[in-house]
Amino acid sequence: MKYELYYWPHIPGRGEFVRLALEYAGAEYVDVGRLPEAEGGGRPGVAKMLEAAADGHTPFAPPILKAGDIVVSQTANILQFLGPRLDLAPKTEAGRLWTHQLQLVLSDLIVEAHDTHHPIAKSLYYEDQLAESAKRAENFRKLRAPKFLGYFERLLSGKDAWLADRAVTYVDLSMFQVWGGLNYAFPKLMARLAPEHPKLAALAQRVEKLPGIAAYLLSPRRMPFNQHGLFRHYPELDE
Amino acid sequence: MKYELYYWPHIPGRGEFVRLALEYAGAEYVDVGRLPEAEGGGRPGVAKMLEAAADGHTPFAPPILKAGDIVVSQTANILQFLGPRLDLAPKTEAGRLWTHQLQLVLSDLIVEAHDTHHPIAKSLYYEDQLAESAKRAENFRKLRAPKFLGYFERLLSGKDAWLADRAVTYVDLSMFQVWGGLNYAFPKLMARLAPEHPKLAALAQRVEKLPGIAAYLLSPRRMPFNQHGLFRHYPELDE
Repeated sequence: MKYELYYWPHIPGRGEFVRLALEYAGAEYVDVGRLPEAEGGGRPGVAKMLEAAADGHTPFAPPILKAGDIVVSQTANILQFLGPRLDLAPKTEAGRLWTHQLQLVLSDLIVEAHDTHHPIAKSLYYEDQLAESAKRAENFRKLRAPKFLGYFERLLSGKDAWLADRAVTYVDLSMFQVWGGLNYAFPKLMARLAPEHPKLAALAQRVEKLPGIAAYLLSPRRMPFNQHGLFRHYPELDE
Repeated sequence: MKYELYYWPHIPGRGEFVRLALEYAGAEYVDVGRLPEAEGGGRPGVAKMLEAAADGHTPFAPPILKAGDIVVSQTANILQFLGPRLDLAPKTEAGRLWTHQLQLVLSDLIVEAHDTHHPIAKSLYYEDQLAESAKRAENFRKLRAPKFLGYFERLLSGKDAWLADRAVTYVDLSMFQVWGGLNYAFPKLMARLAPEHPKLAALAQRVEKLPGIAAYLLSPRRMPFNQHGLFRHYPELDE
């Protein structure tokens, strides 16, 4: 199966969670948004999928994965679809539901991390919602980030454990990306929180060294965090 | 199968999406949070599941569904689990992914509706974030609600159509609840938007008349929207 990923070319964003799964498994895929526009890529190539998907399942927003005749959207849904195909999900129904459930908790965390710099409107610039961002970020630092990270830390039975199964699953790859994103956006906060979450910190380090991931991180395909994505570094939000 | 639903007793909230699916199908279930505390219910009965689920799959937050040995959480995940069991999901993998995908879009809409009255912090009262709520609600009324509702309206091929399949699925029941919640919270906005979304309005009316749902809505088990839930009516947010 040759997959096609449709995601905006200028940010790692939610597309990166899908890339990490594909790259871990060495799957063959085309990152359509990062092809030249002349080859059907770029923002127009992605936008086209939002007008009318060929199978009638027109998505609301990227990322979008095309796998043969199937078009799937919503990050957690894409990962649930890919999991069994890329050997990144448990074999049992209960195990798969559990893995997906944890991914949905991560989705909630990601929205809250994003909203620290956009608490009022996605359609406005950060600079238009500075005072509100300061308040929301304070709540995120004091209550929400510790609540989410504490939950995941407690799930890990030891320093060698994976989150959802005895083996690595897509939710471990996503946690690695969230951990990195939080460290990019909130380095001071994470310097305080990391020692209290040693098993999560160890998990992120182990994911980084997985063969497919290590090779990917060194490749030009890996996009660094930047100031347009979900996770952004504004020093004033990281006191 | 006798299901157990664990959800806070004082609000319809996210638990209501699960109740609608169970009630549609006439499934046997115990609404644990609404049992007396002396019988293991109430808030303590729900909180207990958040400490340590018997199967090791401790949830992050309610709603939680117990089905025999399986404990499932995250609203969309619960509905995905129940769908095939309650004849509320398509038969094919592609159809099930699509139904779940639409449910996840609804989940995003629900968070945004909630955040109109809590844009800064869930841990603060609405009265502590009045100015920010006014701004976020304005953006919701002008951009976000029309964007989400317009998307769903376009998916419907006609006034008799269901959202995800030729037959009713759990996402239609959830859309009915969201439509009702938006009408409760934003009656002025919805008076403007309803004529532009005739197929969605018709869908909500058809769901209301489905036998299992119609009987449920007349029963004492149905909880009305109130000022503690996801959807709240603050006239100043509905200009």
